[in-house]
Amino acid sequence: MAKIAFIGLGQMGSPMATNLLKKGHEVSVYDINLAAIEKLTALGAASSPTLNEVVQGCEFIITMLPNGKLVEHVIFGEQGFVNAIAPNALVIDMSTIHPFESDQIREKLNALDIQFMDAPVGRTSDNAIAGTLLILAGGTDEQIAKASDILLCMGSEIINTGGPGHGIRVKLINNFMSISLNALSAETATLCEALDLPFDIAMRVMQGTPANKGHFTTTWPNKVLKGDLSPAFMIDLAHKDLGIALDVANQLHVPLAMGAASRELYSQARAMGRGKQDWTAILEHVRFCSGLTK
Amino acid sequence: MAKIAFIGLGQMGSPMATNLLKKGHEVSVYDINLAAIEKLTALGAASSPTLNEVVQGCEFIITMLPNGKLVEHVIFGEQGFVNAIAPNALVIDMSTIHPFESDQIREKLNALDIQFMDAPVGRTSDNAIAGTLLILAGGTDEQIAKASDILLCMGSEIINTGGPGHGIRVKLINNFMSISLNALSAETATLCEALDLPFDIAMRVMQGTPANKGHFTTTWPNKVLKGDLSPAFMIDLAHKDLGIALDVANQLHVPLAMGAASRELYSQARAMGRGKQDWTAILEHVRFCSGLTK
Amino acid sequence: MAKIAFIGLGQMGSPMATNLLKKGHEVSVYDINLAAIEKLTALGAASSPTLNEVVQGCEFIITMLPNGKLVEHVIFGEQGFVNAIAPNALVIDMSTIHPFESDQIREKLNALDIQFMDAPVGRTSDNAIAGTLLILAGGTDEQIAKASDILLCMGSEIINTGGPGHGIRVKLINNFMSISLNALSAETATLCEALDLPFDIAMRVMQGTPANKGHFTTTWPNKVLKGDLSPAFMIDLAHKDLGIALDVANQLHVPLAMGAASRELYSQARAMGRGKQDWTAILEHVRFCSGLTK
Amino acid sequence: MAKIAFIGLGQMGSPMATNLLKKGHEVSVYDINLAAIEKLTALGAASSPTLNEVVQGCEFIITMLPNGKLVEHVIFGEQGFVNAIAPNALVIDMSTIHPFESDQIREKLNALDIQFMDAPVGRTSDNAIAGTLLILAGGTDEQIAKASDILLCMGSEIINTGGPGHGIRVKLINNFMSISLNALSAETATLCEALDLPFDIAMRVMQGTPANKGHFTTTWPNKVLKGDLSPAFMIDLAHKDLGIALDVANQLHVPLAMGAASRELYSQARAMGRGKQDWTAILEHVRFCSGLTK
Repeated sequence: MAKIAFIGLGQMGSPMATNLLKKGHEVSVYDINLAAIEKLTALGAASSPTLNEVVQGCEFIITMLPNGKLVEHVIFGEQGFVNAIAPNALVIDMSTIHPFESDQIREKLNALDIQFMDAPVGRTSDNAIAGTLLILAGGTDEQIAKASDILLCMGSEIINTGGPGHGIRVKLINNFMSISLNALSAETATLCEALDLPFDIAMRVMQGTPANKGHFTTTWPNKVLKGDLSPAFMIDLAHKDLGIALDVANQLHVPLAMGAASRELYSQARAMGRGKQDWTAILEHVRFCSGLTK
Repeated sequence: MAKIAFIGLGQMGSPMATNLLKKGHEVSVYDINLAAIEKLTALGAASSPTLNEVVQGCEFIITMLPNGKLVEHVIFGEQGFVNAIAPNALVIDMSTIHPFESDQIREKLNALDIQFMDAPVGRTSDNAIAGTLLILAGGTDEQIAKASDILLCMGSEIINTGGPGHGIRVKLINNFMSISLNALSAETATLCEALDLPFDIAMRVMQGTPANKGHFTTTWPNKVLKGDLSPAFMIDLAHKDLGIALDVANQLHVPLAMGAASRELYSQARAMGRGKQDWTAILEHVRFCSGLTK
Repeated sequence: MAKIAFIGLGQMGSPMATNLLKKGHEVSVYDINLAAIEKLTALGAASSPTLNEVVQGCEFIITMLPNGKLVEHVIFGEQGFVNAIAPNALVIDMSTIHPFESDQIREKLNALDIQFMDAPVGRTSDNAIAGTLLILAGGTDEQIAKASDILLCMGSEIINTGGPGHGIRVKLINNFMSISLNALSAETATLCEALDLPFDIAMRVMQGTPANKGHFTTTWPNKVLKGDLSPAFMIDLAHKDLGIALDVANQLHVPLAMGAASRELYSQARAMGRGKQDWTAILEHVRFCSGLTK
Repeated sequence: MAKIAFIGLGQMGSPMATNLLKKGHEVSVYDINLAAIEKLTALGAASSPTLNEVVQGCEFIITMLPNGKLVEHVIFGEQGFVNAIAPNALVIDMSTIHPFESDQIREKLNALDIQFMDAPVGRTSDNAIAGTLLILAGGTDEQIAKASDILLCMGSEIINTGGPGHGIRVKLINNFMSISLNALSAETATLCEALDLPFDIAMRVMQGTPANKGHFTTTWPNKVLKGDLSPAFMIDLAHKDLGIALDVANQLHVPLAMGAASRELYSQARAMGRGKQDWTAILEHVRFCSGLTK
């Protein structure tokens, strides 16, 4: 059994620390919310008013905090625990923070010869309670191997994301996509309602198309990801269809902020000569606009 | 076997008409492209330089054209076939056109006691060749029943979309969503590349989350679609994560037009008091912004 | 004095026709709104239930209608006046319509040897009443010379916009800019309010800067319009400042849809190597994105 | 003559410090760029490798740095000058930084009984050289009175922006508006070019309209700012005209990211019942979307 410090007992952190306790680990906890601490100490956790004492002698120090400034603060701030970290301890930040802040924290700790890995989590607070989170482990293979028993007390699956900083990066990518997609889905469903089209009929259709299955595993692999831009469905036609949708939406008073932005993207792709290419070539267009290709 | 007129022999129409011939139907065809006509007549189709003669005596008249103006034109234009339609014939528009144009055509034909249904198709030109298109049938149940043998010569699946005009509406919804999603996916994949994160790792994560599975069948059914807005993941946090993504993207020179639009949508939802609601409440926000709710 | 037909007696058309009458011209009017007609006939206008009779023998036929479909309809529709136009008559469309619809109407009339010019108006309904509209005359120099006495009954200033179709084009450009600018101004003023900054102080500053004076006559002439992209204020800094504004706005719940779109434009300009150029180089960037430059 | 420390000798700071010297003040300077320091010491400035020595005994300490982190750093960082500030000295930050960072710096200094004001500058580096900057003074009236002789060595005009933090806020507002407007102007000019309309003709028209004169001093004062939303030009018509412009632009391959965003804003305003209001009511709409009104 390991000695573990757990800092940050919020909606996610509290059940995660609880699961560590349940698996028999020796856990000391810290939060600014005393009620949250009491809940854990009632379950057998140790605590202390100072971070230094909380991390004392721990093999693993886990942070689960709302943002990078706070992670920085509990480690390097005036009351931070940086000088109390045991030799060979591994600091694991499981928060969802800015990846460049995570990089800075890792670099500052590594400069002090302290091990650090990023391991943000996927899924929901229900999964945190059930111990079935998805762990996006960013670190060296050694760090991940060392931490995996501990991480699997909180989650049911670990993905080795390929290196230090990759966990927090993949979390960002996943959240960007799923959060933006949520808003785009809302535009679609609202347009559907404004057209008096029952949503279950639209769903029945979309379940069989990229609209709901996504493009990453349907249209892209055999086209743009292979470098084949010959048209199965042309950029020009995609642009035309978006134009119809926006015209309908504007007649029906459904504002489509994201839809409108996407039409202008296709328009730009056409202006730059991609009108007759496959619609998946929009990836090449966005890469070009980002300076990633010439 | 039925007597069928087929008007519009493009990338989709040509193989669709071919499949009707192959199944033994008597098909007369029309296009402004003579080479396209010759290909079909070589396979046994009849043709004629005038639309009136092409539709003469046909039970089914199918149009498959690039836009609504052309559909309107071949029916009601100076050389249009409207006056040559046989009694009891069914006009089936399989084109992807503006739904309000489709409505107008139906209403004008119905006023002349002529049957009309919309039946746009899903999937690709490969499916048109294989006869495995998805048929989105908009019409009365009688019309769909009458047409289904014919439609199943061209497609492998018919969805009864629930009424006249619903086929073309569901096509619009599906295309809006899949085309916009394609552009959003491109922004995500480009951000991933700019972060030096291998795309296959991002894919491995996203395959298990709404990022690739979509929200319609994952996060929405148990939350917003049931009227439960208690937060599994708060609008406030979704907004925060988008802010991080945009900050990273702007540092890395990855323009995220759609991502930026989505952040402002979440910002607006927060301004209107939804910050502590579940992220799926963005649907309720967009509905409100469209005047569908008070 | 001239014989003039005036078709379209709405908020603008009614006072414009009135002013023609007041200046002593012989005016016959048409509208679907009988009350509007009565108002004009009470002032001495002639009228008739058929367009053909209204335009009979007129030297000038003026249309002032809500959209291009209606202009097309009154000229070429079933009841349209196209066959009743006197030889040497000049058709003047003063409506704000789609420029490509205007082009089509002109081309169709010219093919029949009928003279047509576009002359949309600027300013407001108050100016229509006062006869002080701004006339944006699109036509040949001969047409504008011929029409100018008539036009100056309704407006106080004619701008010869340089050729047929140019009037309606410049109207479009002006309206696009002023309407979009109105929304951007609203975002700015709202951000100002959310920052608790009195608007009159912001105004006092902006009156002396491009923020209120515009760029066309301040920053552009000596930089981008001369081909000088050396930085007085760098794209990189402009991008940074927009980032601060968006961060502030997102903290204060002020959604800046246009501001967000503009930041991504600057981001794209940076990605394409313009970060160290003058901010007016954004013009060159947008031109590039439109395929106007390589 | 005053004793002044000047920290930050970039494109703006260097000529500003030079002007202080020229007016006879005793100036000590600091920068990480030694060449920049040498240029100033050659003109009579004092310098020192430590910030503490540079600010020693100075009545005024001016910072002119690229961002708030640096301002924070030179004041409160490990080598920061906070403990060397003379009693009654006034710290003046003339940088353009994040207003909330400026607030934090002021609050931290005030807590130590140290006077701080924000006084960012307007206009260009040419004006910095000529000593004709516009000074946006944020501070108490006493602070501004005390600083004004000094400030007028660098600028030709001081605007008292009404209180501490207001200078940096008004700078933000001004820059947000002028930078976004620059991009919108680029969209307009590019659309003009794509329409083959000479820009000077468009300019001739726009110079007399809100398109170039702005709305703050033309359309707003007698309408929305007075609470009068009766239509001089209706939201519905503004929305229609934007629709035409976007249709034209999309046909001509001119991507209008900002124009598209603005159309969706007007669409939303219509959905929320503002279609028949004056176009200046878009301000009320954006205020509503920001939670500033119910």
